[in-house]
Amino acid sequence: MGSDGHGHRDDGGPAGVVAMVGAGQLARMTHQAAVDYGVTLRVLAHGADDPAVVAGAEPVYGTATSLDDLTVLADGADVLTMDHELVPNDHLVALERSGHHVRPGPAAFRLSQDKLAARSVLEALGIEGLAVPAHAEVCRPKDVVAFAEAHGWPVVVKARGSAYDGRGVHVVTSPDAVAAVVPEEGGDIAWMVEEHVELAAEVAVVVARRSSGDMVAYPVVGTRQEDGMCVELVQPAPIPDELARGATGIATSVVEAVDATGIVAVELFVTADGTLLLNELAMRPHNSGHVTIEASETSQFHNHLRAVLGWPLGPTDQRSPAATVNVIGRSGGGDPRRRVADALGVPGAHVHLYGKGWRPGRKLGHVTVLAETTEDALERARVAARLLEEA
Amino acid sequence: MGSDGHGHRDDGGPAGVVAMVGAGQLARMTHQAAVDYGVTLRVLAHGADDPAVVAGAEPVYGTATSLDDLTVLADGADVLTMDHELVPNDHLVALERSGHHVRPGPAAFRLSQDKLAARSVLEALGIEGLAVPAHAEVCRPKDVVAFAEAHGWPVVVKARGSAYDGRGVHVVTSPDAVAAVVPEEGGDIAWMVEEHVELAAEVAVVVARRSSGDMVAYPVVGTRQEDGMCVELVQPAPIPDELARGATGIATSVVEAVDATGIVAVELFVTADGTLLLNELAMRPHNSGHVTIEASETSQFHNHLRAVLGWPLGPTDQRSPAATVNVIGRSGGGDPRRRVADALGVPGAHVHLYGKGWRPGRKLGHVTVLAETTEDALERARVAARLLEEA
Repeated sequence: MGSDGHGHRDDGGPAGVVAMVGAGQLARMTHQAAVDYGVTLRVLAHGADDPAVVAGAEPVYGTATSLDDLTVLADGADVLTMDHELVPNDHLVALERSGHHVRPGPAAFRLSQDKLAARSVLEALGIEGLAVPAHAEVCRPKDVVAFAEAHGWPVVVKARGSAYDGRGVHVVTSPDAVAAVVPEEGGDIAWMVEEHVELAAEVAVVVARRSSGDMVAYPVVGTRQEDGMCVELVQPAPIPDELARGATGIATSVVEAVDATGIVAVELFVTADGTLLLNELAMRPHNSGHVTIEASETSQFHNHLRAVLGWPLGPTDQRSPAATVNVIGRSGGGDPRRRVADALGVPGAHVHLYGKGWRPGRKLGHVTVLAETTEDALERARVAARLLEEA
Repeated sequence: MGSDGHGHRDDGGPAGVVAMVGAGQLARMTHQAAVDYGVTLRVLAHGADDPAVVAGAEPVYGTATSLDDLTVLADGADVLTMDHELVPNDHLVALERSGHHVRPGPAAFRLSQDKLAARSVLEALGIEGLAVPAHAEVCRPKDVVAFAEAHGWPVVVKARGSAYDGRGVHVVTSPDAVAAVVPEEGGDIAWMVEEHVELAAEVAVVVARRSSGDMVAYPVVGTRQEDGMCVELVQPAPIPDELARGATGIATSVVEAVDATGIVAVELFVTADGTLLLNELAMRPHNSGHVTIEASETSQFHNHLRAVLGWPLGPTDQRSPAATVNVIGRSGGGDPRRRVADALGVPGAHVHLYGKGWRPGRKLGHVTVLAETTEDALERARVAARLLEEA
């Protein structure tokens, strides 16, 4: 406990417990980092098999939609943070009102929970060089059609809320196809529509910021998505230096402007004509930052803890070109734990498994390789990841 | 479980559980590495406060002198390994006989448990360039005097068994001082005596070897001891390249010759005239290798797991000059968890705390810094470590 009743001290005082909503792989790797600092990571978990609990994080069992469960999680912790977006923002506001420290704060975190709100807020910031794809709110199917008539088919219909691993993202090519995504009335999902951008590349900038304003950015990564899910990434991103500097500048300006704390992954599109469009913000350790475990002196998980605790941030320089390839449950594949030795036989392969049961389409782990070139690193990381996915 | 009834497969098959005798900081950091591979580290612990248990390793409560406890620990595990030497070698032999896989094997491990036996065995190997300090067995005080009359005062009287952190090492300067160390009759400790060597430097080579014979060595580290306990180290060691190559050659030859498996730390003296003398072998992750967490792509903890499981070993190249300084309980000092933020304020400081209660003389953690030079790294690591030691 610290100086102000809940133990959080942005002056860099002692910390005993960091509470995290969620107990998946991001919490698991955050726990590995927390051990270094003698910090207890307490996680909101579904069960004892959750990846972070298996690794030794302290579990509170409950659900993120229950304010009671969240209160049990946060009570006595120095700070509350998140490993996913599926927590009602109102609950975070309520926890702040009851004196808990929530990092990132609810107002900032909302921008990672509602893509439409994020677009509006980010456009209004007036940051130089910052543009977002054309977009509109969708209440009914006809809203999609109207947008497409203005901007052209195809369009992208997205859930405004969490679209973890691409669920809730649909490329819609014609008026007839709209109804299959957006129901005429009701439905549980709030939708938005945006222009379908011809992409030259997708990149992400992982930034760490503490509430004092101190901020560090990792070198830009290039990501490749399949069905809306990140499947692999290289660092540095294969884009001109000037564009990388532009992306970094936009990312740090946004993180500063929205007063986010912790790790923020800023995902950007690079269009065919070399324009940067801001796509999404994730305010937590992120798939794009997994490469930092080996490629940087300070991993995103260490810097997330340091940032939310108000501690000095660590160096983010890249030590070598690197690539990370996700290990995904494939139909006909098997438990990657049975193939670790094979994967480690690929020179330079660093294997990270999440302790999750096999299920098609599920992220089960990742492999990072450092090499002389990103191409070489990517090739080897792919070989190792494919070995882990086999039956 | 693997192919041969106890799950260990040197062909690189799957592993589920690695059992480790001990639950201190070495087991704690091994657990952090095991999480990456989806491997469960099961530890023999005294209590729930042991460093590895706090971090999430699976505990078996018991003592290393109990064969029953060791059997519970090893049953169903793929392999049994050690984080300290205080386990009866006979028990390891018994566990092998009952079909358990012990890595390193008892015959090799004995050389880290009995310094006198190690000296004799190593001398008999006839490895080129390998020399050890002059030494003799001590049964009575007069044996020390006789040795000193042949080799000169002072002499070093050492417990043959584990002298963890320098306990059991005495520099004896005159016949009158012998009785204070070695009793006339009986006593629990088996002693040896060796010449007092004028040291120019102490160095260590950390080697990882799997039972297939594959072996990797980390760059030589220079260590500094106080009262027989390692207090700081730099990598690379401040010795000429030729001497470093000699040390690495001796270390790898010894590890090969004694058929050790896992991490072996080979500690050598560099005498004033530039001769290398082999001092001790430690057959487990070792203080000398803590620097590898940040300075190498693959830490000694990852490579220990890979080696004892018979998995391919990872790259050991050094990425930058580096230094590690231990955080030690000082009289008048305090719990280092209260000063983590201060220590992280030292640029480039990587803090590792062991979750141990404060006690004078106890290793409570370490700090590693990577820098342009080992001198700069050492200076900064010292500043950060001293901050952690303050009240």
